Amino acid sequence: MDFVPVLGYIAGFCTTVAFLPQVYRAWRTKSCKDLSPGMLILFAIGILLWLIFGILIHETPIIIANGVTFFLVMVIVTLKFRFD
Amino acid sequence: MDFVPVLGYIAGFCTTVAFLPQVYRAWRTKSCKDLSPGMLILFAIGILLWLIFGILIHETPIIIANGVTFFLVMVIVTLKFRFD
Repeated sequence: MDFVPVLGYIAGFCTTVAFLPQVYRAWRTKSCKDLSPGMLILFAIGILLWLIFGILIHETPIIIANGVTFFLVMVIVTLKFRFD
Repeated sequence: MDFVPVLGYIAGFCTTVAFLPQVYRAWRTKSCKDLSPGMLILFAIGILLWLIFGILIHETPIIIANGVTFFLVMVIVTLKFRFD
């Protein structure tokens, strides 16, 4: 197995699972007020565009990582609008 | 100019500038307690690995976006450790 795609998968794993402790913290504290709404909206749009970019250049690590990240960011957006 | 790299630059622009309103909010409110430390650490490691991945596959949009994002995330990490 090539090293470069493996590195992409590890990178995608880190930037994707990073949002799990954020979802857990938001759910546990019922508070998202320190999360910037501008950050969440711009980040969600950007992740969606990275997903399309990954599909177009056929880079599976980019596709999987951004697909899952987009889902988790939308969970955080939902929690913010619910709790704030 | 090809469409695909342009899409990559727009995606990178969004996921990078997304952290500017977060830096501004953290600085203005002097509060980062809703930001998960686990999220920040995992995300910073992941962004650094995406940067190396981008260098290895010679994708300039990935290199620039993740270079700038890494800097902004480290600013947020610094503010969190300062304010919390």
